[in-house]
Amino acid sequence: MKPSIVWQTDFGLKWGAVASMRGVCKQVDPEVECFDLTHEIPQYNILAGSRELLYVEPFWPKGTIFVSVVDPGVGTSRRACVALLKDGNYVVTPDNGTLTHVVHEVGIQAVREIDETKNRYPGTEGISVFHGRDLFAYTAARLASGIIDFAGVGPEYPVEEVVLLPEAYEMATIENGVVSGFVSSVSDPFGSIALNVESDRFKEEAGFAYGQKLHVVLQKKGETYFDDFVAYEKSFGFVPVGDAILFDSSSNVIELGINQGNFKETFHVCEGKTYTFRIQ
Amino acid sequence: MKPSIVWQTDFGLKWGAVASMRGVCKQVDPEVECFDLTHEIPQYNILAGSRELLYVEPFWPKGTIFVSVVDPGVGTSRRACVALLKDGNYVVTPDNGTLTHVVHEVGIQAVREIDETKNRYPGTEGISVFHGRDLFAYTAARLASGIIDFAGVGPEYPVEEVVLLPEAYEMATIENGVVSGFVSSVSDPFGSIALNVESDRFKEEAGFAYGQKLHVVLQKKGETYFDDFVAYEKSFGFVPVGDAILFDSSSNVIELGINQGNFKETFHVCEGKTYTFRIQ
Amino acid sequence: MKPSIVWQTDFGLKWGAVASMRGVCKQVDPEVECFDLTHEIPQYNILAGSRELLYVEPFWPKGTIFVSVVDPGVGTSRRACVALLKDGNYVVTPDNGTLTHVVHEVGIQAVREIDETKNRYPGTEGISVFHGRDLFAYTAARLASGIIDFAGVGPEYPVEEVVLLPEAYEMATIENGVVSGFVSSVSDPFGSIALNVESDRFKEEAGFAYGQKLHVVLQKKGETYFDDFVAYEKSFGFVPVGDAILFDSSSNVIELGINQGNFKETFHVCEGKTYTFRIQ
Repeated sequence: MKPSIVWQTDFGLKWGAVASMRGVCKQVDPEVECFDLTHEIPQYNILAGSRELLYVEPFWPKGTIFVSVVDPGVGTSRRACVALLKDGNYVVTPDNGTLTHVVHEVGIQAVREIDETKNRYPGTEGISVFHGRDLFAYTAARLASGIIDFAGVGPEYPVEEVVLLPEAYEMATIENGVVSGFVSSVSDPFGSIALNVESDRFKEEAGFAYGQKLHVVLQKKGETYFDDFVAYEKSFGFVPVGDAILFDSSSNVIELGINQGNFKETFHVCEGKTYTFRIQ
Repeated sequence: MKPSIVWQTDFGLKWGAVASMRGVCKQVDPEVECFDLTHEIPQYNILAGSRELLYVEPFWPKGTIFVSVVDPGVGTSRRACVALLKDGNYVVTPDNGTLTHVVHEVGIQAVREIDETKNRYPGTEGISVFHGRDLFAYTAARLASGIIDFAGVGPEYPVEEVVLLPEAYEMATIENGVVSGFVSSVSDPFGSIALNVESDRFKEEAGFAYGQKLHVVLQKKGETYFDDFVAYEKSFGFVPVGDAILFDSSSNVIELGINQGNFKETFHVCEGKTYTFRIQ
Repeated sequence: MKPSIVWQTDFGLKWGAVASMRGVCKQVDPEVECFDLTHEIPQYNILAGSRELLYVEPFWPKGTIFVSVVDPGVGTSRRACVALLKDGNYVVTPDNGTLTHVVHEVGIQAVREIDETKNRYPGTEGISVFHGRDLFAYTAARLASGIIDFAGVGPEYPVEEVVLLPEAYEMATIENGVVSGFVSSVSDPFGSIALNVESDRFKEEAGFAYGQKLHVVLQKKGETYFDDFVAYEKSFGFVPVGDAILFDSSSNVIELGINQGNFKETFHVCEGKTYTFRIQ
């Protein structure tokens, strides 16, 4: 069976962009299967794209070809590439920071720049704004189909040149039982906020345990917008409906949510380093 | 051909949750096909999940495995189960009320609790917040693949213990040609509202016929927010654009809509027993 | 391999409508594959449906069966039809204007009215509001499966009787280097607005070239809401973030956008002939 292609973009599903990319894949090889990771990455948010890729990638069979198109620099000199990960999966993407999380957590064996003279959908040479269809879909389908191998993508370049977003892997500090960090992401539709501290370190370094009530302070630029004691539990249902809760997320970081509520909307939280937390 | 898996959740499609569940299925068996019912059940609305399941389930080939994950109690002691329906389809779901409509309309042959020691995706034992991926996807794919049969899900328990939501099947009363009930659901994007009266009873017991103008009164806690004469017709296009219309829905209950408009938004209607109607 | 079915509707994905149509196809033939173009055509906007169909249709293998259900007249006397395009693709749709763009750009070989006595999903004879499931899905799947051929759809009728929307192909005028037209569409999520002038004519007739700054004036009913000099470039990244840009769209018309911004929302632009432009 041929490897699957798994798609991620910031195109949304309100128009035909995604379907036109899928049509190109069908034309290359009708047996190649395409799946959707999401098409609702916030527009131009490369960091979010990098994060979602890592969230999903480990759960697919090895050899899967991921395509990520969050590409504000489409048509400029930024590289279009295919990365071969150390676990055997591929990522087809603009080399603009999208690979940051997989570089850190999975590692890259090798990366190649897509050769447009060979791997562009014929007839689209005059179009510069839709590499998702004209370059990435076409290249990914040819790779999945076996028409080209990894070397057929184009010239290799040093893994060290892959563009990285440094803020992606700054983790919370833990000193004297106080965890200090920032909100690394917020998620729809449940509205829990992810803190930049791993569940393991939260338990082992900070010494917190299920059933404890912890003092949580959230600030934005020094101004406090949340200050309360919150239970650390295994899952939402262990606290009353409407109560805040700290829990281990499905990707093993600490999240802060509200049982059957929406923490993000209730307290107007965004992701990023200006939204800091302190837990003790 | 192996049975299909049809998915329903309240996770939304803005992040990788659905794709990670699908990856788990692909790992179990790359030949098993997954399809989406919807991932936009309103968060925590088990009743809506129960209703959509019944709306779609009859139109799929027998043997199809439905997975429904609207699961505010994930990780607590609520049962995770697989129900075998009387028509031969399966439903994999938390046993929290999601089965209400299929119990009433289709019936359940047998129900089994998922044995987590055998049917959990390896490596996720420490995670309590994502049974959709770690338990339900894995179990459904193993069942679809034939790796386990129904008995392999886990221990059977009495069908009488399946959790039901009593309000789901309260139907309108019809007396002396007056139909009295409540708004059982409202739907996007067309904004028609479903009344808890079957099309057959509307015609046969109340005696209404296409072409009639009926007196419709809608109230919320005794306060009237709609009071007008509305045509009962076969479809929207039989009344002028902008006019209200009563019609037989695609699931054979009576709905109230506006031709090329949105009744729900125009009159601020929600679902539930506080939104009553009287038609005569 | 059997031809694919590619779906477009204005039903949204918040409920089970799409999944019930897909189930009908599975019942007809489990080997027939269904794909989504979009289910978020703005409600009742037949013109938008016509446009998206043309945007995607050329990128799929010949023989593909497109189904479009934007159908405010469902259940009335409007024709339900299958059109065979000159390029070998099919479109299954209410004959209500949805075929306008493909008639102009691709051409129709022949069109047939769906014979409801043969091509209706059994058991749905009493339902008039869901031809997407009961008529179009069933007919498309039977055609894709080979159970019926094109003649089996129903009686042929003259191509000249296909309903067209005349505004769809009114193009901008170009006189003395001044291009005058209107906003033919606006798109989510990037918020660029499409002008009714082809990239070729923009370059060849008006004489504009990449790198030029052009004077763009947008008006609504005579009132100016945008008046500035805008660079014409190959892609967004050639202007600073936040700057407006004119570029060749992926369907080879001229679009006006903002690099990493949203022109539509910033300047409150809608599609249609009341939103005029002048570029020189």
